[in-house]
Amino acid sequence: MSKALVYQTDFGTSDGAVSAMYGVAYKVEPTLRIFDLTHDIPQYNIWEASYRLVQTVQYWPEGTVFVSVVDPGVGSARRSVVARTRTGQFVVTPDNGTLTHLKLMVGLDEVRLLKEDVHRLQGSELSYTFHGRDVYAFSGARLASGQLAFDAVGDTVPVDSVVELSHVAAHREGDTVEGTIDVLDVRFGSLWSNIPHELFAGLGIEHGKRVEVSIRNDMREVYRNTMVYARSFADVALFEPLVYINSVLNVAIAINQGSFARAYNIGTGLSWKVTIRRAPRIVYE
Amino acid sequence: MSKALVYQTDFGTSDGAVSAMYGVAYKVEPTLRIFDLTHDIPQYNIWEASYRLVQTVQYWPEGTVFVSVVDPGVGSARRSVVARTRTGQFVVTPDNGTLTHLKLMVGLDEVRLLKEDVHRLQGSELSYTFHGRDVYAFSGARLASGQLAFDAVGDTVPVDSVVELSHVAAHREGDTVEGTIDVLDVRFGSLWSNIPHELFAGLGIEHGKRVEVSIRNDMREVYRNTMVYARSFADVALFEPLVYINSVLNVAIAINQGSFARAYNIGTGLSWKVTIRRAPRIVYE
Amino acid sequence: MSKALVYQTDFGTSDGAVSAMYGVAYKVEPTLRIFDLTHDIPQYNIWEASYRLVQTVQYWPEGTVFVSVVDPGVGSARRSVVARTRTGQFVVTPDNGTLTHLKLMVGLDEVRLLKEDVHRLQGSELSYTFHGRDVYAFSGARLASGQLAFDAVGDTVPVDSVVELSHVAAHREGDTVEGTIDVLDVRFGSLWSNIPHELFAGLGIEHGKRVEVSIRNDMREVYRNTMVYARSFADVALFEPLVYINSVLNVAIAINQGSFARAYNIGTGLSWKVTIRRAPRIVYE
Repeated sequence: MSKALVYQTDFGTSDGAVSAMYGVAYKVEPTLRIFDLTHDIPQYNIWEASYRLVQTVQYWPEGTVFVSVVDPGVGSARRSVVARTRTGQFVVTPDNGTLTHLKLMVGLDEVRLLKEDVHRLQGSELSYTFHGRDVYAFSGARLASGQLAFDAVGDTVPVDSVVELSHVAAHREGDTVEGTIDVLDVRFGSLWSNIPHELFAGLGIEHGKRVEVSIRNDMREVYRNTMVYARSFADVALFEPLVYINSVLNVAIAINQGSFARAYNIGTGLSWKVTIRRAPRIVYE
Repeated sequence: MSKALVYQTDFGTSDGAVSAMYGVAYKVEPTLRIFDLTHDIPQYNIWEASYRLVQTVQYWPEGTVFVSVVDPGVGSARRSVVARTRTGQFVVTPDNGTLTHLKLMVGLDEVRLLKEDVHRLQGSELSYTFHGRDVYAFSGARLASGQLAFDAVGDTVPVDSVVELSHVAAHREGDTVEGTIDVLDVRFGSLWSNIPHELFAGLGIEHGKRVEVSIRNDMREVYRNTMVYARSFADVALFEPLVYINSVLNVAIAINQGSFARAYNIGTGLSWKVTIRRAPRIVYE
Repeated sequence: MSKALVYQTDFGTSDGAVSAMYGVAYKVEPTLRIFDLTHDIPQYNIWEASYRLVQTVQYWPEGTVFVSVVDPGVGSARRSVVARTRTGQFVVTPDNGTLTHLKLMVGLDEVRLLKEDVHRLQGSELSYTFHGRDVYAFSGARLASGQLAFDAVGDTVPVDSVVELSHVAAHREGDTVEGTIDVLDVRFGSLWSNIPHELFAGLGIEHGKRVEVSIRNDMREVYRNTMVYARSFADVALFEPLVYINSVLNVAIAINQGSFARAYNIGTGLSWKVTIRRAPRIVYE
């Protein structure tokens, strides 16, 4: 039986691009099951493409083939690759940083070069700008359907050589954990940090206790307040802030039924740092 | 054979949340057919989630399993339930009002408690904020695939006890029908009232005749005009208003190729009332 | 085995309309494979619906059934038809211009009348405004599943009689090619002209050479500059403009990682003309 094929792009779904990618895969194998991760990656935003993969991949079975096309360098010398994660899923993608989070957080088992002139939809030779359709969807479908074995994709390349975007690991310093704000829970405006729940757990703070949260953009502090470390939103009053462990088991910061990001103009990326510590007691003397 | 599984959320599709829900269901049963109602329910808007279900459910066969996750109270004491409608579809949802319209307009046959600690994706114990993935998608997939029988979900709860959002029934008073504006035909801006076509039919107004429409927000009248009661948009000139019977067989008000809601700043909800009567004759003496 | 069914509408996916269309098809045949072209056609924009079909159809196999519902004239005397393209796909649509590009660029083999009162979901007689669900999705599903043969749809109508939107063919005049800007690559803001790559190739300009591009809105020139004729975006510097052959093999104009349309306020349609010629040499004497 074929494996699932899952698409991610920054194309949106307002024109025919994604549907052409579906058609190509359907032609390869009409019984193939094709799904979407998202097509709303902000244009050219490789970091977010990388994050959405790590957020999702583990919920799909071994053998699932992801095709991720955020490809500002289409037509340049950037490589195309197929990676197998340590948990057994495949990712077909330009090697432009899209594999960053999977490499760091899940691990890559083996990576193979995908030659764009070999693994290519017949008749697409004049088209130089839509590898998503002509190369990636086509090859992903052949891989998912078993028509192309992983071993036959192309030469292996060292996992070390896979392009990584800059990143800074979260760390603990005494009673404080510090990390970056990696991404937003888009619709709800919660801040998702790169602080793993185990690192935070080292501080020994229990659910229901208060923590102090400080957020900096470069050197400038843009937010500082104390709030409850809660299990879930409903543990705090409406419109109150909270710290919680999110669905990928990292520390996150939110407002119950509000957008933290919009309320305080918080962005994402390496320049956005967050530190968390047990809230100080306030003593009147 | 498995039944169809249909998802509705307020998550949007810009991040990996919905795809993780798909992966979970696919892992339960790889041949399962999974579809979307919508993921664009405005955040926390339980009323609209309830409406979209009643607008859609009847077009799917008996046995279809809907999973609806608009869940501002995730982590609170609100119950999770599985309801069977009188027409034989299932809905897996937090019991927070999402079943309001189905209960009123279609009827609920039987409702069972879904224990969140029992019916839960293995390994998700640390995640308290994403029941959509960990509880509802997982249980919906097991139900649709036949791995979990409805009888085995949990204890029945009285249909009466299912949470209902406030609502006011449409009614007729002499020559006038009055109702509320329940929802918009989102993209087109038509007003969908809760006045059933049978109630309106009682006024004995024929297609092509003029009616008078008055719209009030609380006590204030914000619109009054006469317009044609038309079969369809094409029965009136471009940009002319009309009253018609919409696709769920309620009375609706629109502008042909325009947005009534935007043209006159009309909203939805209990404070938005509409009355319709035969247009008066205008007599010059 | 059933053929693929592919939907296109201007309904958006924020309410239950598209899901009702899915349910109707699923009820016709539960094993049917249903896909989306797009549901984000701007409201009532028949031209764009027509374009998205021609952009996509050829990537799907023979026998695929497209259902396209951009139908401002629902309820008027406009015909409903099923067309078979010269490449063997079917399109179920109101005959309102939606078939323009397919007729011109792919060719229509045979067109049959779809009687709305015959080919209609049972029980939908009171609904006059949602042919997408009641007539088109229903008939498309019956066609794709083999329950309705193309021959049995209804009488043939002359291909000549199929409604065409106004259009102007691209042409060459000496050393210059001229065309219209048909559509945008929505998310990226590139201009897609109607100039076929063969027409442009007649100018004998090689990749890497410079061309002069002039864009006019009616009589007014709104842009004139020279830029490289590139294979792909990566052939020019970041934020530099380029001319290239797009994924449907027409001439297109873009900014590498920028939006040409937004940068220079360029629109689409017959009033937007583009001319391209070899860039003049600039000689200092």
